[in-house]
Amino acid sequence: MNEVELIARLVPSLPSNGSVVVAAGDDCAVLDLGAPDYILFKTDAIVEGIHFTAETPPEKIGRKALARCLSDIAAMAGKPNSALVTIAVPLEFEPARIGAIYAGLNALASEHSVAIVGGETTTNPERVLISIALIGTVEKDKCVRRSGAKAGDAIFVTGKLGGSIHARHLDFEPRLEEARWLRAQYNIHAMIDLSDGLASDLRHILAASDVGAELMASAIPISREAKVAARAESSTKPPLLAALTDGEDFELLFTVSGRDAVPLLDGWKKKFPKLPLACIGKITAEPGLRLRDKNGMKSLTVHGYTHFEKS
Amino acid sequence: MNEVELIARLVPSLPSNGSVVVAAGDDCAVLDLGAPDYILFKTDAIVEGIHFTAETPPEKIGRKALARCLSDIAAMAGKPNSALVTIAVPLEFEPARIGAIYAGLNALASEHSVAIVGGETTTNPERVLISIALIGTVEKDKCVRRSGAKAGDAIFVTGKLGGSIHARHLDFEPRLEEARWLRAQYNIHAMIDLSDGLASDLRHILAASDVGAELMASAIPISREAKVAARAESSTKPPLLAALTDGEDFELLFTVSGRDAVPLLDGWKKKFPKLPLACIGKITAEPGLRLRDKNGMKSLTVHGYTHFEKS
Repeated sequence: MNEVELIARLVPSLPSNGSVVVAAGDDCAVLDLGAPDYILFKTDAIVEGIHFTAETPPEKIGRKALARCLSDIAAMAGKPNSALVTIAVPLEFEPARIGAIYAGLNALASEHSVAIVGGETTTNPERVLISIALIGTVEKDKCVRRSGAKAGDAIFVTGKLGGSIHARHLDFEPRLEEARWLRAQYNIHAMIDLSDGLASDLRHILAASDVGAELMASAIPISREAKVAARAESSTKPPLLAALTDGEDFELLFTVSGRDAVPLLDGWKKKFPKLPLACIGKITAEPGLRLRDKNGMKSLTVHGYTHFEKS
Repeated sequence: MNEVELIARLVPSLPSNGSVVVAAGDDCAVLDLGAPDYILFKTDAIVEGIHFTAETPPEKIGRKALARCLSDIAAMAGKPNSALVTIAVPLEFEPARIGAIYAGLNALASEHSVAIVGGETTTNPERVLISIALIGTVEKDKCVRRSGAKAGDAIFVTGKLGGSIHARHLDFEPRLEEARWLRAQYNIHAMIDLSDGLASDLRHILAASDVGAELMASAIPISREAKVAARAESSTKPPLLAALTDGEDFELLFTVSGRDAVPLLDGWKKKFPKLPLACIGKITAEPGLRLRDKNGMKSLTVHGYTHFEKS
């Protein structure tokens, strides 16, 4: 049983109540607590040796911990509001380094008007672990879920994908402004942020929406880092595979009606001229994920990173 | 620099925004997000080897993780609403044990109508760590903070204190119903839940309220476990010291105007006949914490457990 299977078994038995609009299984939980807007609720943890190393500058650790959660708020077209910070460190960990973790985190929080309203430091003897809990808001008619993709939708992705581990995973910009603009301008049917890899995260949209997809290999935007890595080491993934399966891109993946695709691309180029946006394929009624390249169409069996199991 | 000093240095530089009513430094953060009620926001983490052991039944680990957060919601007279669960476990950890952690947590959540709306499992190679993020609500005119204690207030505590480590720390009942009733019936000036020990947690109220206190040694309710432990091992703390300094009692400590003390005690005995409530002293304008026993008054220098430093 891997993590995905475990979650699939646990989720149906989780207690609920009348204020829950979206429970486990989307980028954020969505609650109706009587305010004009929905409340978005999200946690995310990063662990030394997995998401960063003992050599990572502490400011970048703090920044990354918060940025990951902000990216999930973006994926629902929300606005982040307030965060709590849990830092678990070895007993001998320098308090000044905790201060530096906060400094990186506070700087990013301030950029996005996020209040840091508390948290705790506790002990984890062998390694640093940081968990962020984040509250956001979203207008009730603007909340974008994973489950709204429809056959015929165009599939878009921001940025360039793959090789994030070589640099970007510590410095990525959560696409909050872009997601808010997209949802204000267009009827975005489904959206997710890329944390586990394009192939894996697109499958989350397909499963939630009960549809399939065809991707065009030539349209998938590949990062410079993924290309350089492929040249430098013969053992590494080919660049296209890296773009499909590498984790931690933290770009937006979304679908809109096919007729919105061209106006959306035009509008985007005017609004965000520096950030690439690519139409990479289409949603199909036929289930499954397929990739079209110069040799024709093939079923895409490769997954992004799955916890608890080597893929 | 210990944890308390570190937090004192970090807190003033934390970013804020217009929705923050209470930031770091109380039992929960309090947000005004446009709903009729305030939003309460809290996280708490428990770590194997510190808050439980490898032998603790996983159901009790899950229960304790949530119960600690519920106790913080109680301390502000709030109602818990929704929780996210982060479970970090070694790679070889049995998925069935994760299911058992959730089972204990879900059972307690259901008792209090708390929705479990997601979370994640991640890897912490050496030990289990569970972090809970909790959202609650409280009527704007009923939210009780640490900062409202006034000279002349009577100080009350629920339950019996000390020796929680011998059993109760895994099975305590968060005092949600009691706190809601207290605040509905009386003008509770200040409240906190006992997590670090009576002496330490009372000092949090005194510091936040800029007052002092006198405790009566003979009035402090001492648990049976603390008395048994003191008899069994010559090296252990005397029972009164255990009641003053042992952590994890998770009882309510609160203050009310002196003139409310007797009616409150009477009302309590009718409403909660099985749960002891004791008036243990009074709030003073003179700063500091003092203890009156048969030998007279002495300044109380002993602290509860402080992280990062032996006390």
